[in-house]
Amino acid sequence: MTLISPSRRLRRTPFSEGVEAAGVKAYTVYNHMLLPTVFRSVEEDYHHLKNAVQVWDVSVERQVELRGPDAARLMQMLTPRDLRGMLPGQCFYVPIVDETGGMLNDPVAVKLAEDRWWISIADSDLLFWVKGIAYGYRLDVLVDEPDVSPLAVQGPLADELMARVFGDSVRDIRFFRFGWFDFEGRSHVIARSGYSKQGGFEIYVAGSDAGMPIWNALMEAGRDLDVHAGCPNLIERIEGGLLSYGNDMDRTNTPHECGLGKFCNTATAIGCVGRDALLRVAQEGPVRQVRAISIKGDPVPGCDQHWPVVAKGKQIGRVSSAAWSPDYNTNVAVGMVRMTHWDDGTDVQVQAPDGLRDAVVHESFWH
Amino acid sequence: MTLISPSRRLRRTPFSEGVEAAGVKAYTVYNHMLLPTVFRSVEEDYHHLKNAVQVWDVSVERQVELRGPDAARLMQMLTPRDLRGMLPGQCFYVPIVDETGGMLNDPVAVKLAEDRWWISIADSDLLFWVKGIAYGYRLDVLVDEPDVSPLAVQGPLADELMARVFGDSVRDIRFFRFGWFDFEGRSHVIARSGYSKQGGFEIYVAGSDAGMPIWNALMEAGRDLDVHAGCPNLIERIEGGLLSYGNDMDRTNTPHECGLGKFCNTATAIGCVGRDALLRVAQEGPVRQVRAISIKGDPVPGCDQHWPVVAKGKQIGRVSSAAWSPDYNTNVAVGMVRMTHWDDGTDVQVQAPDGLRDAVVHESFWH
Repeated sequence: MTLISPSRRLRRTPFSEGVEAAGVKAYTVYNHMLLPTVFRSVEEDYHHLKNAVQVWDVSVERQVELRGPDAARLMQMLTPRDLRGMLPGQCFYVPIVDETGGMLNDPVAVKLAEDRWWISIADSDLLFWVKGIAYGYRLDVLVDEPDVSPLAVQGPLADELMARVFGDSVRDIRFFRFGWFDFEGRSHVIARSGYSKQGGFEIYVAGSDAGMPIWNALMEAGRDLDVHAGCPNLIERIEGGLLSYGNDMDRTNTPHECGLGKFCNTATAIGCVGRDALLRVAQEGPVRQVRAISIKGDPVPGCDQHWPVVAKGKQIGRVSSAAWSPDYNTNVAVGMVRMTHWDDGTDVQVQAPDGLRDAVVHESFWH
Repeated sequence: MTLISPSRRLRRTPFSEGVEAAGVKAYTVYNHMLLPTVFRSVEEDYHHLKNAVQVWDVSVERQVELRGPDAARLMQMLTPRDLRGMLPGQCFYVPIVDETGGMLNDPVAVKLAEDRWWISIADSDLLFWVKGIAYGYRLDVLVDEPDVSPLAVQGPLADELMARVFGDSVRDIRFFRFGWFDFEGRSHVIARSGYSKQGGFEIYVAGSDAGMPIWNALMEAGRDLDVHAGCPNLIERIEGGLLSYGNDMDRTNTPHECGLGKFCNTATAIGCVGRDALLRVAQEGPVRQVRAISIKGDPVPGCDQHWPVVAKGKQIGRVSSAAWSPDYNTNVAVGMVRMTHWDDGTDVQVQAPDGLRDAVVHESFWH
């Protein structure tokens, strides 16, 4: 790990004060904004996330807001997932592709109303693509980044903590649904979602000034629950098979390669950009796909570039994220593997920076 | 300064090996890629840049390539700068605006041919905007990010060093012009340009595999010139009034507010997106504008958020970048100041994190 120089360009968030007071140890940069990566240690944060409850500053999940008569039409243009059945109050995980079927982002679409949507984005300036499409098609829609900053509450005790601050009715929110909840006289969207497999919520905090009061209320209410500041955890998200845009996939990949074919209704998602490009891959399937890979040996170093996956000396894939898993007592990894070697249990090798290691391809992740 | 966690998402560059061997001390993240910020110290790098020659890994200036019959039409749609007089072999600094006239990027356009352009971008995914416009308008053009990574050679001895590696004819390249030069059998664009006021070149290294050989050749040839790895220097770029997208301006600003009105030919840039929005501001001028600001007292801390500029207790602007300048013996800063207080020599105050400081607004930067 090395140092990062401060600048306004790497934006602070409405919760930065709380994050710093909680002793953040390292960051990454995501959507031109600081995202904490470590508080106590990646392993200590991991165990705590699985046993207690954490509050995560995920302001970096910036919102692209679509508002106006053409909002729903535009939203459907952006994704091969068929949105016709989607109701206000629902969240959908939506691959967003360009005209070649290449992944531009893998956000969560939040349908506030027929004519008002948020797209809660991964790490790319999706706003630019959406604005370009809206402008090019002369759509009657406003596209902007509102002052909304998600705060996640994740872990087995998330329901208890959230109920204490927002009332017992948060317990009734179903997975990938949301409701509106009051805090000090202002209404915020709260969804049952989040970038972990431990359960929990995301509060779409409306207005930067509401950030620290909500952060402090959660910390105060959760003292006896061992609440702590946390962040998306590298180990836990790999175990759970949660992909990371920019790490495990990018513009060169189709959704099908990313294992997101189930979110593509290419035949019925009429008007979707990239539909023509995806029709054939939807029918025939991809020739390489994301897989879980366990890598043998000692804990691997940080994965900051593709590691080749090889079989009989020939490259048949690559690893894009990897970490040592204390719970599974192996190195867990996400990679892209060619069809010839993607069956469950296939023995391969991974060219890690410290040498060639034996590894096994799995069809399912660890969670 | 704090630590940054490694991940594939924060891309390495073709020169990372050289950057690490040269002892890089800190990075920032720019276009999802690592950009060095310090080698020896910001001050030592600063003095060295003004006295010798440095090699900068500025791969983060990713290229957006436009190729095809509609390339020139698309390029003109992107900017209010009139490009009709631009010839192949020229580079133009071009504000890029959205339909509201808000800045999306401030790149350098490189005209390779009538039907082939590179846009050498600042820190935003301009590719997404350009692809969206091209798709929406059904333009006959390919838009992509090629494997081209700029390497800058900056400083008073840049001509001498470049001549030793690429031949004496590099000396003949005029400011913001480029030529094609061979290195080990491959041809690279070399322009007289760069993000400093000390003079020099940018080599648009074609192909990642050509990166380290060129880096090494420059380091080898420049030993007696005291060549050293360097990077855009915060102090020097503020002294020189070189703006930084994301720091000193963003989507909320017009080019005119950024002092880039001279690069806008709103009346004649036919077809430019945002033309309507900019017509009035082009006529009447902005109500706030970028200014140089000197801040009195001891060296300021790092500026990682806007510092209010106040007069008689009222906010009349903000500082977005600041640093102590050894050569001018004052804190130099870039800010945006309202018309009422932007005249040269106006006394104001700046709310720095460590207290209110006296400051003076200047019409010109220090270089």
